[in-house]
Amino acid sequence: MGNNDSWLETMRHSAAHIMAEAVLRLFPDAKFGIGPAIEDGFYYDFELPRPLTPDDLPAIEGIMRQIIAEDGAFVQRELTKEEARSVFADQPYKLELLEDLPEDHVSVFTQGMFADLCRGPHADHAAQMGAFKLVRTAGAYWRGDESQPMLQRIYGVAFETEDELQAHLDKLAEAAKRDHRKLGRDLDLFSIHDEIGPGLVCWHPNGALVRQLIEDFWKAEHQRRGYGIVYTPHIGKLDQWKQSGHWEFYRENLYSPMEVDGRQYLLKPMNCLGHILIFRSRLRSYRELPIRMAELGTVYRYERGGVLYGLTRVRGFTQDDAHIFCRQDQIREEVVGVIQLAQFMMATFGFENYEMVLATRPEKYAGTSEEWEVATAALIAALESLDIDYEEDPGGGAFYGPKIDVKLADAMGRDWQGPTIQVDFNLPQRFNVCYIGEDGDEHLVTMIHRTVLGSMERFFACLVEHYGGAFPVWLSPVQARIVPIADRHLEYAHSVEGRLRRAGLRVEVDGRSERMGSKIRDAQLARIPYMLIIGDKEIESGGASLRLRSGGDVGFCTIDDVETRIRGAVENRA
Amino acid sequence: MGNNDSWLETMRHSAAHIMAEAVLRLFPDAKFGIGPAIEDGFYYDFELPRPLTPDDLPAIEGIMRQIIAEDGAFVQRELTKEEARSVFADQPYKLELLEDLPEDHVSVFTQGMFADLCRGPHADHAAQMGAFKLVRTAGAYWRGDESQPMLQRIYGVAFETEDELQAHLDKLAEAAKRDHRKLGRDLDLFSIHDEIGPGLVCWHPNGALVRQLIEDFWKAEHQRRGYGIVYTPHIGKLDQWKQSGHWEFYRENLYSPMEVDGRQYLLKPMNCLGHILIFRSRLRSYRELPIRMAELGTVYRYERGGVLYGLTRVRGFTQDDAHIFCRQDQIREEVVGVIQLAQFMMATFGFENYEMVLATRPEKYAGTSEEWEVATAALIAALESLDIDYEEDPGGGAFYGPKIDVKLADAMGRDWQGPTIQVDFNLPQRFNVCYIGEDGDEHLVTMIHRTVLGSMERFFACLVEHYGGAFPVWLSPVQARIVPIADRHLEYAHSVEGRLRRAGLRVEVDGRSERMGSKIRDAQLARIPYMLIIGDKEIESGGASLRLRSGGDVGFCTIDDVETRIRGAVENRA
Repeated sequence: MGNNDSWLETMRHSAAHIMAEAVLRLFPDAKFGIGPAIEDGFYYDFELPRPLTPDDLPAIEGIMRQIIAEDGAFVQRELTKEEARSVFADQPYKLELLEDLPEDHVSVFTQGMFADLCRGPHADHAAQMGAFKLVRTAGAYWRGDESQPMLQRIYGVAFETEDELQAHLDKLAEAAKRDHRKLGRDLDLFSIHDEIGPGLVCWHPNGALVRQLIEDFWKAEHQRRGYGIVYTPHIGKLDQWKQSGHWEFYRENLYSPMEVDGRQYLLKPMNCLGHILIFRSRLRSYRELPIRMAELGTVYRYERGGVLYGLTRVRGFTQDDAHIFCRQDQIREEVVGVIQLAQFMMATFGFENYEMVLATRPEKYAGTSEEWEVATAALIAALESLDIDYEEDPGGGAFYGPKIDVKLADAMGRDWQGPTIQVDFNLPQRFNVCYIGEDGDEHLVTMIHRTVLGSMERFFACLVEHYGGAFPVWLSPVQARIVPIADRHLEYAHSVEGRLRRAGLRVEVDGRSERMGSKIRDAQLARIPYMLIIGDKEIESGGASLRLRSGGDVGFCTIDDVETRIRGAVENRA
Repeated sequence: MGNNDSWLETMRHSAAHIMAEAVLRLFPDAKFGIGPAIEDGFYYDFELPRPLTPDDLPAIEGIMRQIIAEDGAFVQRELTKEEARSVFADQPYKLELLEDLPEDHVSVFTQGMFADLCRGPHADHAAQMGAFKLVRTAGAYWRGDESQPMLQRIYGVAFETEDELQAHLDKLAEAAKRDHRKLGRDLDLFSIHDEIGPGLVCWHPNGALVRQLIEDFWKAEHQRRGYGIVYTPHIGKLDQWKQSGHWEFYRENLYSPMEVDGRQYLLKPMNCLGHILIFRSRLRSYRELPIRMAELGTVYRYERGGVLYGLTRVRGFTQDDAHIFCRQDQIREEVVGVIQLAQFMMATFGFENYEMVLATRPEKYAGTSEEWEVATAALIAALESLDIDYEEDPGGGAFYGPKIDVKLADAMGRDWQGPTIQVDFNLPQRFNVCYIGEDGDEHLVTMIHRTVLGSMERFFACLVEHYGGAFPVWLSPVQARIVPIADRHLEYAHSVEGRLRRAGLRVEVDGRSERMGSKIRDAQLARIPYMLIIGDKEIESGGASLRLRSGGDVGFCTIDDVETRIRGAVENRA
């Protein structure tokens, strides 16, 4: 026992048992699922006679504190399975777990009146508990299986000191304020409707505008760097997905086929095959390579209902996808180009911290070991030529080639999946994707799959939380709101609106008959970067009082000043 | 008989019989389908012992001229069905047609050795034929039914005079040169692959760039006019399409459902329902109306394989769709706005001739007759306030509301389906799409469905043919090609390329070691608007010799001049 990670995990696990005992005191008929330590805390799953409400958590917490004050010991016993069966006679979930254990003897921990089938380790005494808090309840299928009963889960967080706990709770509160699902509603960005189906997203004008601005920027940047943008259909014959291997290896994530004219068609789970067909639509010479083909391609993949979450786990999403068709000797240079593009994108969106991971050849692989060596060396050479520190994940590559993954840290220090660059030796072979070499013969191309944003849905969720909904000026759906103090200032307000709109800015007038204070508060809640307050004085001087959403008060500005300032922020993407 | 349309049709029909007799002389075992007059000519369907080749057409034409020289008479006889059965004893298709006729007596026309089951009228003598030519063969299912045998069809064109025929053949040749399927291959714009499926389009970088420029223009113009752009999923639960009525009324054009978690899902055939859900995602006040929601929404509709054609009849297409949710008293103003937007778009793309058609209430209709009156009056008021001449199509509206359709004429005078504006009383009712009125009560909104381009696929096909592949400068995938005369001019050529690219222009260097003449020819074939020829003299004077794709030679220009000229053309969308 000590102040290290392993003690923290032990303490959290013991806290789960103490919570279970508290629940047992409150609901003597409770049936118990499992209760592990997790990152930052613990949970336990219960079958209870009634649904828990948020009000139950303080009550359970109170009983836990009482149990801790009683300071019962955690006692471990070795029982035969037969003995254990009688201990858990009225606990069907424990009995089920018991039957799955291969050993003859099992470990049972008891503290107070609560016994659990558990290997430990645990604290010695309840009083060793640190600072904790129960934070929320959730439904959870027994064993994560949707065909099994739904249990009630209580989550707690636990740390060694009250200060650490409070810091974590503050972080949770900040995360809750930034939650993209909450801000998605508050800022009218997107919605998901049961009428259409779970995991399928409707982008509202505000969210779609941000997406469009990101897409426009993405397209221009790709075209500048020699990518050709394409569009390919969302459905296609199933046969091609059999030929690619997706039907065999990836089937549980595919939708069920549709039948058209007696042939089976599939919603596309990825964009590769359309790009291969475009590449193959005419003979390609070595002189034309590399050919870089990019698509904002919407793909559909089945995910279990239980794992869907806001915009981060969905069933339909738009990948910022690209495939580079190149010669083997071009891999290094192409990967350098992709990394530079990724760095440029991450810098633009304000991600300063990220980690790159090089994943190498697994046990089972496509292609020859020589190809793997050449490609892996090319990836390493690319990373090194850019002076990038990277971690290695030996054997972590896809079966079809080595890859580089980038993990982004957002403004709150949380990790998000970032750009990914994968070499592919498999598809060129399966679809005979060739170019005519200098020698006049056919050679297989090397394909590089890559995304820099991942998917528009997940990246947008990440941005919403990263910025806390306060998008930078170039991405803000409304860049400035004009707030006339009284009705007599409305006409001038609209003339300023027209002037700024003609300058290409997104501006609106709050013409409601509300008090100025509440108009300013509403503009701040809507995260609008600039507010132009207009009253008698401002009209007289031919300008506006400029306020920032941060609360900062710039004071009187001419409309020229305002335009220059906003346009500057747009152009710098600041 | 005379020089009017009805004689022309009679003559064409007789030409079909003469062609049938010629085929009979060539293939004594030929079986005959049907052979009507059509626009510009005629066709006949045959079952023949071998496939026809293009070489057969002159031979058949030769026999036709011989038959005309023989000047046999067209003789009509009334036969009993029994007699007719013996005349057509070895003609199974004729026998099948015969059995479908309700009459006891049937009309049979004979000329030379060929007899046909036919009501006429016909020419008196073969020598009355005008000028004709056989133009192509095609496969055609008997009775247009894919489960029936495939027959061989020969198409001919026929006019009264050789001059008229020649003018028509010239027009056909010009149309063939502009055919978007041919130019799609030649200019590397798009492809359709059997591996994906018929009617499903892959847009190549060149075509996709034109589409993207049109889409960017479209989006900016819509946002400027107060539309919010949205994105909605390509699949959704089947239930909503049952509620909308599409499953009942439109089923033969829908794909078969997929199953997800035991629920049926459908590929969306239209974008309305997602927009309705976004509208309904919060309470809407009368003060917020109209709400204009636009989407470049890709939809999938089943079309029979036989009717698919290039980009004009496809199975997946992107509609430039929008829905306006408004109060009844706003219909007129909104329709005025849509017509003005449509006129602006048509003018931008160089369509000067179009016709508007107002289609009014059919026999069966949704909504009340009062609603129809108000809406129809609003459409008329909109057309009249813009001084637009329109035709009326009484009873031609959709069951759910009146509409205005626009027919475009392209550079060759051919009609294309253009913008359409439809009022809808049905969906607001079926989905209870309401706003809160000034009176505090719920009222059904009026929905206006509209597209201004139709679909990106069909509109792009239309543009390709309208411009003959020579897109205006702002849409050209490559705006200028720099042609260095010798290798020593390459470095300067690339510096000019860099300079113009930084100015935002799409420029490339033809660095091949080909002769200048063939480089210029290739640039013209690629329809690149500007060629910059660079040799010793140009480098010395610090400029380039400018040529136009039309063949025009502008002569020496500084690079500043070139930039100004191209940017001017882009900005004017000229």
